[in-house]
Amino acid sequence: MPGAGPAAGAHRPQSEYPEELPSQEDLLLAAAYVSDAQYNRNVPFETSPQAIRLYYFYNHWTMRAATYFFICVDLSLALFEEPALFPLPFLATSLAEVLCLTAFFGRLVHFAKITPQMVFWKDTKNICIMVTIVLTLMDLIIYGSLETLHISSIRWSRALRPVFLINFPDSRQIRRAFRSIRNTLPDILYVFLLFLFSMLIFSLMALKFFGDRGLKTAEGDPYFTNILDIAFELYVLVTTANSPDVMMPAYNFNWWYSLYFITYIIINTYIFMSVFLAVVYNNYRKHLKNEIRKLAYLKRHKMIEAFNILKVKVGPEFVVKEAVWKQLAKVVVPDISSSHLELLLRISDEGQKGHVDKTNFLRLADLLNIQVVTINIKGHPLEAWLPRVYQSSVSLLVQRMVRHRIFVWVYDVIILINAIFIALDEKNPLISYVEWLFLSLYVVEILLKLYTYEPRAYFGRKQFWNWFDMLIIIAALLATVANATIQSARKYNSQQILDIVLILRILRLLRVIISIQRFRVIVTTLINIGPTMLTFGGLVFVVYYVFAIIGMEVFHDKVRFFGPNFTTPDALVCGNPVLKGSAFAQYRYCRNNFNDLASSFILLMELTVVNQWHVLASGFALVTHQAAKLYFILFHIVVVILIINIFIAFILEAFFVAYSLEKSEIETAIEKKIQELGVGIQEDDTQDGVLTDNVDANDSSICGGDGDSRRQGLKGLYCRIASKKYRTVDALLQRMFESEIAPDDEGPSLNEILNFSPSDIYPRNPNFENSA
Amino acid sequence: MPGAGPAAGAHRPQSEYPEELPSQEDLLLAAAYVSDAQYNRNVPFETSPQAIRLYYFYNHWTMRAATYFFICVDLSLALFEEPALFPLPFLATSLAEVLCLTAFFGRLVHFAKITPQMVFWKDTKNICIMVTIVLTLMDLIIYGSLETLHISSIRWSRALRPVFLINFPDSRQIRRAFRSIRNTLPDILYVFLLFLFSMLIFSLMALKFFGDRGLKTAEGDPYFTNILDIAFELYVLVTTANSPDVMMPAYNFNWWYSLYFITYIIINTYIFMSVFLAVVYNNYRKHLKNEIRKLAYLKRHKMIEAFNILKVKVGPEFVVKEAVWKQLAKVVVPDISSSHLELLLRISDEGQKGHVDKTNFLRLADLLNIQVVTINIKGHPLEAWLPRVYQSSVSLLVQRMVRHRIFVWVYDVIILINAIFIALDEKNPLISYVEWLFLSLYVVEILLKLYTYEPRAYFGRKQFWNWFDMLIIIAALLATVANATIQSARKYNSQQILDIVLILRILRLLRVIISIQRFRVIVTTLINIGPTMLTFGGLVFVVYYVFAIIGMEVFHDKVRFFGPNFTTPDALVCGNPVLKGSAFAQYRYCRNNFNDLASSFILLMELTVVNQWHVLASGFALVTHQAAKLYFILFHIVVVILIINIFIAFILEAFFVAYSLEKSEIETAIEKKIQELGVGIQEDDTQDGVLTDNVDANDSSICGGDGDSRRQGLKGLYCRIASKKYRTVDALLQRMFESEIAPDDEGPSLNEILNFSPSDIYPRNPNFENSA
Repeated sequence: MPGAGPAAGAHRPQSEYPEELPSQEDLLLAAAYVSDAQYNRNVPFETSPQAIRLYYFYNHWTMRAATYFFICVDLSLALFEEPALFPLPFLATSLAEVLCLTAFFGRLVHFAKITPQMVFWKDTKNICIMVTIVLTLMDLIIYGSLETLHISSIRWSRALRPVFLINFPDSRQIRRAFRSIRNTLPDILYVFLLFLFSMLIFSLMALKFFGDRGLKTAEGDPYFTNILDIAFELYVLVTTANSPDVMMPAYNFNWWYSLYFITYIIINTYIFMSVFLAVVYNNYRKHLKNEIRKLAYLKRHKMIEAFNILKVKVGPEFVVKEAVWKQLAKVVVPDISSSHLELLLRISDEGQKGHVDKTNFLRLADLLNIQVVTINIKGHPLEAWLPRVYQSSVSLLVQRMVRHRIFVWVYDVIILINAIFIALDEKNPLISYVEWLFLSLYVVEILLKLYTYEPRAYFGRKQFWNWFDMLIIIAALLATVANATIQSARKYNSQQILDIVLILRILRLLRVIISIQRFRVIVTTLINIGPTMLTFGGLVFVVYYVFAIIGMEVFHDKVRFFGPNFTTPDALVCGNPVLKGSAFAQYRYCRNNFNDLASSFILLMELTVVNQWHVLASGFALVTHQAAKLYFILFHIVVVILIINIFIAFILEAFFVAYSLEKSEIETAIEKKIQELGVGIQEDDTQDGVLTDNVDANDSSICGGDGDSRRQGLKGLYCRIASKKYRTVDALLQRMFESEIAPDDEGPSLNEILNFSPSDIYPRNPNFENSA
Repeated sequence: MPGAGPAAGAHRPQSEYPEELPSQEDLLLAAAYVSDAQYNRNVPFETSPQAIRLYYFYNHWTMRAATYFFICVDLSLALFEEPALFPLPFLATSLAEVLCLTAFFGRLVHFAKITPQMVFWKDTKNICIMVTIVLTLMDLIIYGSLETLHISSIRWSRALRPVFLINFPDSRQIRRAFRSIRNTLPDILYVFLLFLFSMLIFSLMALKFFGDRGLKTAEGDPYFTNILDIAFELYVLVTTANSPDVMMPAYNFNWWYSLYFITYIIINTYIFMSVFLAVVYNNYRKHLKNEIRKLAYLKRHKMIEAFNILKVKVGPEFVVKEAVWKQLAKVVVPDISSSHLELLLRISDEGQKGHVDKTNFLRLADLLNIQVVTINIKGHPLEAWLPRVYQSSVSLLVQRMVRHRIFVWVYDVIILINAIFIALDEKNPLISYVEWLFLSLYVVEILLKLYTYEPRAYFGRKQFWNWFDMLIIIAALLATVANATIQSARKYNSQQILDIVLILRILRLLRVIISIQRFRVIVTTLINIGPTMLTFGGLVFVVYYVFAIIGMEVFHDKVRFFGPNFTTPDALVCGNPVLKGSAFAQYRYCRNNFNDLASSFILLMELTVVNQWHVLASGFALVTHQAAKLYFILFHIVVVILIINIFIAFILEAFFVAYSLEKSEIETAIEKKIQELGVGIQEDDTQDGVLTDNVDANDSSICGGDGDSRRQGLKGLYCRIASKKYRTVDALLQRMFESEIAPDDEGPSLNEILNFSPSDIYPRNPNFENSA
């Protein structure tokens, strides 16, 4: 990035440009705005040339990758610290941690340089990071000095590490999920209190009803005699984990008592848990919409800022000159091809007046986000090389056969037969030969398809299923060959390869999904919402990490696992005599412990699934203290009641948006224009059609349809319009919202935007349409 | 209902009326339409005078009650038939059943008389009932004749009994829930197939991965060696009931294998189960809206029919004369008071022109549904009797004290202290005295409140919480006195009364909810959606009944319960040696059997709660055949995947509608008019305010505000406008929809209405508002 110093400087190259052209600084500033709008970044940066250049550097992918690298290193340190999966000395891990902290601090200083002082110190994100860095350093020093004195203490600051993951700018989605949880808390709190109150009432009833009856549990313990035990059992019953065991003693005594438990389950499990979901979902929806609105207006705001920097007056209105527009686009996307740029210009400057007006300029960020594809309108390469052979009647017959529906069905049947053979015993050598037959059949299929369809179209960027098919077959072929080689050499360690071969052989069955349209739709929807599901992965990871660190500090080595085949008395009670006779030991749960990070994560996963969590909780309470149950209850509340419900809310929302879209069309202004100009193709044509046939058809109709002069020189270059398929619900909602803002609507002021509240969105008069 | 014969008859009283008045028949016909509109009944009846009179009789409450009585009798027969809770001879139950069938047949013949032949024979409801009657009779004859030959056979037709419950007209809600399930099936089927396919893939993997490892379960059985067992275990894992036990052997062997289970749970439990919910919810919502729209238009249609019968031409437009309007209202609601009628007329004939125009006439059904309340504007009765004393400074101080916030708080604290005493041991005589103290404190509180507030307002029809308070205290007082009397007489059988006292004493704690606004709101919402929840009760009852009958036929007496204290080897294996060593016997689940209707229902409830269902399924599979597991899997699919999800969808919807309404106002045209005329009060004023203070305030402002001549003679009579609180989501949605139909919109034709499809509702262009 050349050029430095004040904008009014004289000896710089851009001062030689004609008067109307903006300075290099202005261009950079405008490009920063456009780029932020394009990627929905919302960093308030200073507009001094120095700060802008630093800002470019800040957003550079190497810097972001480095930050993520250090976050990963910092988080993975837990694998190497006591209790460790791979032990390393304290000196090594603490040095690595200090290094990471330095990197985070550097990143923060960098950020402080580009953002105004006021904004920087008001942002809780920055304060959080600073406080965490200081606390971690303090902890390191204390722990290190106690270590040298051989006093063991607790590395409590490790639980704070996810703060770095949450608070760095690109984790916007995880932050939003946390914000969503925080916003839900006040609403959910009252429902939760009411729920606790109901539990209290039922606990009292249970104490009075069953406490004096002298009943015994199946293990022979007294039944329902202590109010705290009852409350715990009833909380477990809400999670259904001890049903029907908790009811059996009372039910055995008198069947009327079962009504108490049925009432309890209906009120607390069914009604209250549904109400929790309703409250969480409602909040999620409300805040999602608010954030989308905020993002859309902020984007518009940035584009207007960029326009105001570059505008010149031509005639009655302000516009941006074509040359400036091109320069800007090149600064925003340095590696844009000139034909691509030309295509975008055609769309923005329809009348070829040599300048872009405001409405069209505001669309630049969206335009840059639209994929431009080169459509191959050539025929099959074999047709060019061996036209006689390829067009011969036998060849045409083969092609017709392959394109036929029955071809697909035949292969579906083959796959199903394959499934049966897989289920059969493999020891039989005949079956192992049959496996080779199936493999060769699949290879023939792919070769036939490549013969019939244009290979480059067949392996187009969006032809997910074709890729999947091909990779699975090739991998299976390689692995089977490798396995056969090793087997013939009679070495023992072919187990890993055998496992891989097995997985690949079974994954091949997934191909049946491809040929059934309804299945493909469902799977495509699931794949589309995949990236956002990863957000929840991040959210769950953060919560798991914090709980795992706490759990490792509190519970490590209280329960030990000696291996699956140890049957010594010590191994049967997990190395802790207190567990003798407990359900934890009876179920052989010794492996479920907090002795390293991996075990902790798996244990937390088991708690998330809920079943038997009370056995785990009681086990760890036995080896420490009854209060340890609070850890497990808290985990249940946070993960199952809050996060899983948000996850369900997200899936519901994603499916509803996908569904309401399936019924209709949303076109943003920009897509309409692209369609009018005839330079767009629908994404679904290339992705979802029956292989590449549609592309061919579509293509020829575009080419044959109009010999428009405007499109000359852009041959084969089209905008891909994603009208029905989107990566995420967010993107889709944002499109919906943007299609509703008028092109000349400048939106509210920046401060108003930042202070949007979810309650503004709700209409005064809800109508029938959007109420249910 | 006097008058009969053809409409053109001469010797009837109404022929003496002036020419314009409609005949008695016309009036009855119009009244039938209005009444149908009022109660949302949609029975296509013939318009002959004979049919109309039969139709009135058909709708009479005695007929409906008789039908329900016979349905109850028919369903409860299962309690008396083998395997019976209270055994009765076959002759008695079969006679009762024949009696019920006769009643149903009579009701059906009655229905056939009033509805056109074509409609009758096209309606599947009627065909269903007839087929069921015939089948039941056949079954009775076959079973009876085999019985006399001492050959035991199966009473299979008992499973058909819920058909009568579903198909009688008033079970519209249950039918809709079933329709909702049926409509969901095609959509859910593909997701379910995909889910099964995923299960198959994972089963194959498990077989290949774990089958050859020689692993053992905690019980020492071989682990994952049979594909059918694996498939069952994996289905159970989807329901989370065997997590983490099913994973432990593999996890103990190598911790990497846990990833297989985690992947499986994420895909099948979390994602697929959420997708099921999304599909069910989406369908529920779609069909709900469609049905509401249909209902609203049918109502409009019926009112137009009624208008067309009674209209006369006055000036340029058709109207209904005031006298006719009054007659009509009196036929529809025979016991309407004249002042109530006068009030309604004021609203309908605003200009007092002596007739009601079409727009106002169409509102009649809604008007009749609006509650009219008498507001008591008198002061406290004590004030009239003893004005000096009641207005004395001490008395005023007491009143101010009672009205004060602190008074409520003090009693909340008392209740909490009471809770602690309840939790303490009751054997201590001191505590039993303290109980008397608390009781007297509560009685004092109620007396003080009655002293301060107007008693009739305090016990107003909607003052739910005051009633609750009063009843609990009085019942507790009575029961405690009764208990004390019995205790002093030292009889042994005071256990029942003691239990009742305990329940009442604990229920008293619920009063804390009253004093916290947020709690009251949540509880009120839950109480409001209570009636519709009963629909689900009906739905669940029907499914339970069918499954219970089948279960009793298949599994009865295979497992026996000997009592809680039997420890003979036979009792420990539930009387069936096959169960020796099974989990079913180890968990002591003998009481969970199909040996009578009550036990079956409790067992099905346990299956609904899901946990340990596989233990029950495996137990019953052991005593019969492995195929018995299919019964349990089918139950899980129907109840947990379909019905529970519909229940959750319903709760979500109810909360969202309640929420979106909280933010805004919906006023139907009729409510606007009532407000304009100043004869309405908001329902929430009387129900939700701080006791009756609000009514007083509201009241005086209405009375003081305007001395409108129109309102004279109606003093104290107001329409209660339910603007924010509704009984059901349906009613609310219907209001919303009706508020959107233009007053002069006649709606589509009857045929179009009946053929509405859900997909019509979706707008071509979904907008941001209603998409998320």
